[in-house]
Amino acid sequence: MSEEARTPTPRPGGRSARVRADVVAATLAEVTERAYDGLTVDAIAARSGVHKATLYRRWGGVDGLVADALTASADQPWPLPDTGDLATDLRRITYEVYSVFTDPELGPTPTALIAAAQRSDIGATALRAFFAARHRQAAAVATRAVERGELPPSTDGSEVVRAATAPLYYRLFVSGEPLDTRAAEQAADVAALAARAGLFTTPGAD
Amino acid sequence: MSEEARTPTPRPGGRSARVRADVVAATLAEVTERAYDGLTVDAIAARSGVHKATLYRRWGGVDGLVADALTASADQPWPLPDTGDLATDLRRITYEVYSVFTDPELGPTPTALIAAAQRSDIGATALRAFFAARHRQAAAVATRAVERGELPPSTDGSEVVRAATAPLYYRLFVSGEPLDTRAAEQAADVAALAARAGLFTTPGAD
Repeated sequence: MSEEARTPTPRPGGRSARVRADVVAATLAEVTERAYDGLTVDAIAARSGVHKATLYRRWGGVDGLVADALTASADQPWPLPDTGDLATDLRRITYEVYSVFTDPELGPTPTALIAAAQRSDIGATALRAFFAARHRQAAAVATRAVERGELPPSTDGSEVVRAATAPLYYRLFVSGEPLDTRAAEQAADVAALAARAGLFTTPGAD
Repeated sequence: MSEEARTPTPRPGGRSARVRADVVAATLAEVTERAYDGLTVDAIAARSGVHKATLYRRWGGVDGLVADALTASADQPWPLPDTGDLATDLRRITYEVYSVFTDPELGPTPTALIAAAQRSDIGATALRAFFAARHRQAAAVATRAVERGELPPSTDGSEVVRAATAPLYYRLFVSGEPLDTRAAEQAADVAALAARAGLFTTPGAD
């Protein structure tokens, strides 16, 4: 048994963190190539060079591996615009979502990962945390708009970001309607307009 | 072989239509109880009383059965509000979506059906047609708002309805965040505000 196997608590930057990074990378590659139904712990073990027994012990199996890959993705920093105008910032954010998911190189991995996460309870929990983290992180564009006086003080920034991006994810993962730049801009503009009108203020605040 | 088996073209109201109704009902019951992974043509045959060979011939298999159940659901009329005010009409529509999907009796069937349709190409095609049909049908609330002078003449009614309902489906089927009446009302109000501001007009029209 390896050193890592006797050290269940991940140490950032240490061997455990490196093992996790290798396993996450292998899970992402496998889910992209084979989708959820083709995922096996064996293939992820072979691809990552991490022993199968370690994968089962630390991640429990395929669903735990998918969930952790999503958690690791949520921790990745996203480029956050700061153009001085809320609508423009939101257009940058929705354009980024559009660009990533419709890019033939970049799109298949997050698409497959989100679809795979929907297939288990642990994946669904990670998915919810993933989107909540993204909304919270990008909420800074709304916070800055509040500071500029562009939005009411009690605006919930996560709600603004959710409103701007939800129509894109709806097309990508629910209705299957095509996603184009016009739909991305429209979603940003609708959210910015509603935010300025105070539709995303926290009830009871102010 | 039954009469129906030699009559591949469905005749509305005839034996073929009754067979389809039985098969759709059985598919909906099975997908609700067992979800996509538990669906079998055998069980749908047993439940509907329609011969397995007929199911394979007319529907091709489980994916075709799921797709047709969705197509049949798209043909079901939805109650369409006509309160004389766009925001109120849209609130009624989003409240209806909220009510159906969060109801412990009513919710599981459409939830399971949509999740199952996402699992095959033929299901995804039916899903896209299903949502497009719903948007088109409910677009009447925007058309009436145009007639009342509440919205710009070139408003795309399907876009208004999509904008009002997308945030609900995003919560239900993508982010997994809880759906409550406040979120349903907010989505309707955001769409109504944006529609009045002309954000859903057809480019090049007017």
